[in-house]
Amino acid sequence: MEKKNIVFIAQSLDGYIAGKNGELDWLHAIPNPDHIDMGFNALMNEIDAIVMGRTTFETVCNFGGDWPYPKPVFVLSNSLKNIPDRLKDKVSLTNGRPQEIINKIHSKGYLKLYIDGGTTIQSFLKENLIDELRITSIPILLGGGFSLFGDLIEPMKLELIASKVFLNQIVQNCYRCKKIYL
Amino acid sequence: MEKKNIVFIAQSLDGYIAGKNGELDWLHAIPNPDHIDMGFNALMNEIDAIVMGRTTFETVCNFGGDWPYPKPVFVLSNSLKNIPDRLKDKVSLTNGRPQEIINKIHSKGYLKLYIDGGTTIQSFLKENLIDELRITSIPILLGGGFSLFGDLIEPMKLELIASKVFLNQIVQNCYRCKKIYL
Repeated sequence: MEKKNIVFIAQSLDGYIAGKNGELDWLHAIPNPDHIDMGFNALMNEIDAIVMGRTTFETVCNFGGDWPYPKPVFVLSNSLKNIPDRLKDKVSLTNGRPQEIINKIHSKGYLKLYIDGGTTIQSFLKENLIDELRITSIPILLGGGFSLFGDLIEPMKLELIASKVFLNQIVQNCYRCKKIYL
Repeated sequence: MEKKNIVFIAQSLDGYIAGKNGELDWLHAIPNPDHIDMGFNALMNEIDAIVMGRTTFETVCNFGGDWPYPKPVFVLSNSLKNIPDRLKDKVSLTNGRPQEIINKIHSKGYLKLYIDGGTTIQSFLKENLIDELRITSIPILLGGGFSLFGDLIEPMKLELIASKVFLNQIVQNCYRCKKIYL
């Protein structure tokens, strides 16, 4: 069975995933009256489980409404001790180094993983653990905030595998990480 | 006559226009055997003059070979005192605040301007003086370097006007700056 770690995330044109004060409202800057999902549902069908950082988990919890993920979610945290009762059959806590986390999740039979959250994505990229980046660019310059990408030890070559435009305004590019350092 | 300030620049997927040590070799990471120009020649035909910072000017000078710009170049610098003799009919020095610089260049009859260089682009964007961003994304993560975009006082909405893929790997997106703060 193929193992795969996929990032699927939206950023501003200047590379932020949240504004200076954590704002996410700009994600909806382009009207989407028909609620097209831009690949989210296809991703959910493709993966076995989701791995996200604590901040992303808490952000999703604060959205209210129905829990959006139809697959098991692993939340990375050293500080969280409990999952809210309503999510106990959907969410588990884990921690460790990125490779250890992946190994633990693989050992449970979940091989295709959606990796989410800025800190998590950055730490997985730094250890060369991401196979595919699916980046959706919202046409806005935020001028500051939390960056999607962080430092790397070495540059990493990518291979463009798809480029789409949604709603005539939102560009989504999918890249395979070559895992060959330059 | 229409006035227009256009940015045309290549970045890494993580938003850098030069590597940690100024490296630019990654700009050629994708083989381009037929030397397709990805819009450079069309831009040269469209503009009246080029405005660039000192670092970009010195970088272009160090490339050696023929001078690449068929239009007058204005170099922004407070420190440079002289232009090399071979470029005296092609390049002039100027300085001042972004709006003053634009006014000076407009008064000479040059209305459509190509704005180049990281510091220059950032200072012009900060003062809302850019009309169009043409951003070419090379499929590589540099993991550090000189960022294309900097801080802004307020977020700036953009409008996607074109999205193209060159060489099956390089995505070029053109955005109109709406000049309406959110």
